[in-house]
Amino acid sequence: MKFSIRAATKADCKEISRLVMELAVHDKMSAQVKITCDELERDGFCQSPLFECIVAEVPEENKSKEGFTTVGYALYFYIYSTWKGRSMYLEDLYVMPEFRGFGIGKGLLSTVAKVAKEKQCARLQLSVLDWNTPSRDFYAAKGAQDLTVKEGWHLIRFDGQSLDNLANETQKN
Amino acid sequence: MKFSIRAATKADCKEISRLVMELAVHDKMSAQVKITCDELERDGFCQSPLFECIVAEVPEENKSKEGFTTVGYALYFYIYSTWKGRSMYLEDLYVMPEFRGFGIGKGLLSTVAKVAKEKQCARLQLSVLDWNTPSRDFYAAKGAQDLTVKEGWHLIRFDGQSLDNLANETQKN
Repeated sequence: MKFSIRAATKADCKEISRLVMELAVHDKMSAQVKITCDELERDGFCQSPLFECIVAEVPEENKSKEGFTTVGYALYFYIYSTWKGRSMYLEDLYVMPEFRGFGIGKGLLSTVAKVAKEKQCARLQLSVLDWNTPSRDFYAAKGAQDLTVKEGWHLIRFDGQSLDNLANETQKN
Repeated sequence: MKFSIRAATKADCKEISRLVMELAVHDKMSAQVKITCDELERDGFCQSPLFECIVAEVPEENKSKEGFTTVGYALYFYIYSTWKGRSMYLEDLYVMPEFRGFGIGKGLLSTVAKVAKEKQCARLQLSVLDWNTPSRDFYAAKGAQDLTVKEGWHLIRFDGQSLDNLANETQKN
């Protein structure tokens, strides 16, 4: 199947937010999604964008059964390593199920890697759920290291009340 | 022991790079450190900084046995969640061993959390090594969730040859 990959524009945010929700449903965590199309527009397409995004499109004649031609996306931003310097984090990579197996995911991933190299990033990192064997195998086949398995890294999060409590502690000092 | 916490300036980069190396030695990964003082100055103290940093200082009379008064630091930057929006990532939090137990680590962490709240971040995230029980206990006691244990997230990395190979694949499409 023919497809093309291009940088997302503000006008793509409606489609991106649809795909964000599809990915969250796939990850069995859709209840956690609070982002709206308006917020994606504001955060990604302003003077100092908080992320960059690329989308994959198929020709009109190959549209999905619901009529969509935007069938995948990758959303990423820049992070920093005090060991290696500027790096990139791939927050989301998603292709709609009926469009898998045509190399669209590989195309999105390699495009992100190309941007990372152009921007002098030493690393491209991402996170994947342990039960998501197809994704883990996909990244491993491309030469990625699983740092949780290899080095023992755990991802830790403060949010909601625990973040509020932490921030309020400064007042006691 | 008295200590103070303040935003780092360009002039602190020599001390920060010393502490970055100390932390890497603690993590048993010092061979991976490639960053220099000059790079920290360039990347963190420019028009569009790639990170922000705070430092902890003790009075001259409490200086370390080697004569240092900058005894800890926290380095962080902004990330983005397509579920929750703007978030913060704490890349490094470190206090020199002889200055632990005085609340300096807690002070650095709560200051970072306060900045996160001020900047409307929904989350504060970080990574910790599984053998580093003191750090894991410290974050857990503050209410953090271990997402690797709770949800099964693995950290994946492309770098060096695997990143080059991935970027070069776009030419074949």
